[in-house]
Amino acid sequence: MGSLADGTGNNYEFTLNALDPEEFRRQGHRIIDFLADYYRDIEKYPVRSQVEPGYLHKLLPDSAPNHPEPIQTILQDVETHIIPGITHWQSPNYFAYFPSSGSIAGFLGEMLSTGFNVVGFNWLSSPAATELETIVMDWLGKMLKLPNCFLFSGNGGGVLQGTTCEAILCTLIASRDRMLNKIGWENIGKLVVYGSDQTHCALQKGARIAGIHPNNFRPVSTSRLTAFGLSPDSLRSAILADLEARLVPLFLCATIGTTSSTAVDPIGPLCDVAKEFGIWVHVDAAYAGSACICPEYRHFMDGVENANSFSLNAHKWFFTTLDCCCLWVKDPSALIKALSTNPDYLRNNATETNTVVDYKDWQITLSRRFRAMKLWLVLRSYGVTNLRNFLRTHVKMAKHFEGLVIMDKRFEIVVPTTFAMVCFRLLPPPVTVHANELNQRFLESMNSSGRVYMTHAEVGGVYMIRFAVGATLTEERHVIAAWKVAQEHAGIVLTTC
Amino acid sequence: MGSLADGTGNNYEFTLNALDPEEFRRQGHRIIDFLADYYRDIEKYPVRSQVEPGYLHKLLPDSAPNHPEPIQTILQDVETHIIPGITHWQSPNYFAYFPSSGSIAGFLGEMLSTGFNVVGFNWLSSPAATELETIVMDWLGKMLKLPNCFLFSGNGGGVLQGTTCEAILCTLIASRDRMLNKIGWENIGKLVVYGSDQTHCALQKGARIAGIHPNNFRPVSTSRLTAFGLSPDSLRSAILADLEARLVPLFLCATIGTTSSTAVDPIGPLCDVAKEFGIWVHVDAAYAGSACICPEYRHFMDGVENANSFSLNAHKWFFTTLDCCCLWVKDPSALIKALSTNPDYLRNNATETNTVVDYKDWQITLSRRFRAMKLWLVLRSYGVTNLRNFLRTHVKMAKHFEGLVIMDKRFEIVVPTTFAMVCFRLLPPPVTVHANELNQRFLESMNSSGRVYMTHAEVGGVYMIRFAVGATLTEERHVIAAWKVAQEHAGIVLTTC
Repeated sequence: MGSLADGTGNNYEFTLNALDPEEFRRQGHRIIDFLADYYRDIEKYPVRSQVEPGYLHKLLPDSAPNHPEPIQTILQDVETHIIPGITHWQSPNYFAYFPSSGSIAGFLGEMLSTGFNVVGFNWLSSPAATELETIVMDWLGKMLKLPNCFLFSGNGGGVLQGTTCEAILCTLIASRDRMLNKIGWENIGKLVVYGSDQTHCALQKGARIAGIHPNNFRPVSTSRLTAFGLSPDSLRSAILADLEARLVPLFLCATIGTTSSTAVDPIGPLCDVAKEFGIWVHVDAAYAGSACICPEYRHFMDGVENANSFSLNAHKWFFTTLDCCCLWVKDPSALIKALSTNPDYLRNNATETNTVVDYKDWQITLSRRFRAMKLWLVLRSYGVTNLRNFLRTHVKMAKHFEGLVIMDKRFEIVVPTTFAMVCFRLLPPPVTVHANELNQRFLESMNSSGRVYMTHAEVGGVYMIRFAVGATLTEERHVIAAWKVAQEHAGIVLTTC
Repeated sequence: MGSLADGTGNNYEFTLNALDPEEFRRQGHRIIDFLADYYRDIEKYPVRSQVEPGYLHKLLPDSAPNHPEPIQTILQDVETHIIPGITHWQSPNYFAYFPSSGSIAGFLGEMLSTGFNVVGFNWLSSPAATELETIVMDWLGKMLKLPNCFLFSGNGGGVLQGTTCEAILCTLIASRDRMLNKIGWENIGKLVVYGSDQTHCALQKGARIAGIHPNNFRPVSTSRLTAFGLSPDSLRSAILADLEARLVPLFLCATIGTTSSTAVDPIGPLCDVAKEFGIWVHVDAAYAGSACICPEYRHFMDGVENANSFSLNAHKWFFTTLDCCCLWVKDPSALIKALSTNPDYLRNNATETNTVVDYKDWQITLSRRFRAMKLWLVLRSYGVTNLRNFLRTHVKMAKHFEGLVIMDKRFEIVVPTTFAMVCFRLLPPPVTVHANELNQRFLESMNSSGRVYMTHAEVGGVYMIRFAVGATLTEERHVIAAWKVAQEHAGIVLTTC
């Protein structure tokens, strides 16, 4: 309790210590119970939120309250106003986009880092945040059998970014500046960035942000012939045409597990082409990189020793809550040269002795959260063996679903299942609607039921449904139930088309 | 419990459900107690970590464990290995950099959003995440008396970014693309970006990332005459010189509360100059914007109606855990035109009807956390009146410290205290060391004691010590104790110089 004058003659009473340990304890326990109940009851909510645009404006006041409201009132509002507007990514019946696989360990790690609330921009600002990050990045790099040149122990190194968008942007900037320092900044308009037409939209956006001329973004065409992987020959042709036009090939983003269909670009052969022309290769394994900790999937990374950088999202399919993108680079100095800042107010002895990592120089932003904590908890709480088995369980469930699809002649598998995502569609009966329209209606019919959530992609002109297994709570029975939902709604859609 | 074949003839046993609600409850409660105890005992730790570079590598194994480790083992390691390496930003004796002011409400909000773990890239992916963000951004905008044109209710709008670096980069990209669409992308090398020599390093870095020619970044000089604020006349001269050189003035970042000395640029007059030349003005109120919810500070924002964008960091001095930067723009379409992506796999009806906000098009990254939750909890749990009073308490404590400094003739105040940061230094006795060196030693002496943590800045050639009040646990007694530490160490340093 205190009172305070504001200089205008008013006195204010206030009664709160906003970080009182015992109040923290009381309210913290309450939220834990709230969330535990949420996970227990999660199947009772429609997976995809069924609200209409603007629903929440009708429920909440137009301005912030003047006076404090108790946590129980707020939690009541979360229950009645927020939860209906949430799409339940943690639901076992969630099969949309890619998973956002939470876990107890990931959650606890996030709580610890939020509790400490340190701002680890450089080593000095919280040494443990930096050092733990270098350690877990080497741990995870070893689990992936990343060549030693990507690890701190081999003069490379890893950093936790928020998302793959940032990983791509940072490496693109590093490659851009390295090139422009050679050929002059006036040539920025000549730089060319390559990917496939299946590469994540983060590449095009990153190139745009980095000032690459919009005409110099090359999404090289793929086709069913290469299972939508980027062909090294097509890449070479694109590069040669650009050289012919006096442009400067700069950067290639190759993908292990594309968003639309989990296609895999052939890393080794692409790196060989890129090397010939001095192009920086970033390997985006946002989704499927996790699976590469299993020996039976590691071959998808073959050739990575010739890439410049590699990233995966631990928040997708690695039980680490959003956001946590793991980026490794062979040459940290390229990142640092492009992204470092040295204002006087951050000068310190540790930095000046060059014995520490200052992660602010490895990323877009200055401030950064203590993300290593949650990854460390995930790795320790589950251990390598269990983590591999979690991923294998998801793959096994996806294969089970694929088998069920194959057995029903009304459906087809559009591309074979490589990881834990099944791409399938409903076949149109003869002489009726177009297959793409039919599948749009089929998907919307399923999602509107609230019993499952799946999303779509269009590859090679084919609209297909993506069934991505990976929510942590998903068990075999949920996959079987999802298949029943699919069969039911196929029946409804087919009889009305 | 389950077992699984990996296709190589091996069988694996595993026993974990990584999101089991009852296990979540048990472990969650344990962490709450751990953190409550941490806050209770926080004063026993040295504020600035006293570890040496590389300390953690010596304590942790070289690779991730193969098998699970129990949470109590991990927490034991947090206690013995991590906490000594943490700089305690939540300590009441923390006065360094700017505050990272946690609160119970901010923590609870972060827990909820981590628990739901939704990925709110567009409206559909979790409508509540988007809608709550639009609502709280209007709430906070009204608290700041931002002109209606910055609010959704006035066809502007707000978005939660991670940090000011992202806010600056996004608005810079928006202004860049708007300009290049007029004058052609081949002219990117002509664009000029303005700030003062006190502007945060995020501006120079953002300009670099955006592909602005390194020679075209203009840190306009300031001096003690304008209290280190940017003079509109100096800005105009710089612009005219650039026009003379056939360059294209693009973007100005004006600051309310600079990092070095909390200087305030005169927003209104600067906007008048910028308007004349069609320059985008971003107002960076990362630190001091929070104070502008108090009527007595609102005048620092006067003229903001002529700016294009405005941001403040709720994670600095607004009780919301890292990261949470609030950005408002008058013309969201400028952001959206520059930053939108429309891959087929995100196509949906809500987006196509144009009735919803898709925040992925307002920021660098696609994936985004449900940050609005924590800001909503902070606003509701404390209410506007208390929030103002919290800030006033910090200012009052800073003024108290300033008064103590003034009374001791061995010290001087370098620039008058405007918000809750005091800039002071030790005066050197005649004919001894240089004042800057003396104050470096003085600061290091205090920080090595572990009893307080303060940092420095150099303004106009003067090395000064920044005493930033704002840690949530700080009370008057901590400020008085910090002053005693300063006096003690002044005595030590002065007798040995």
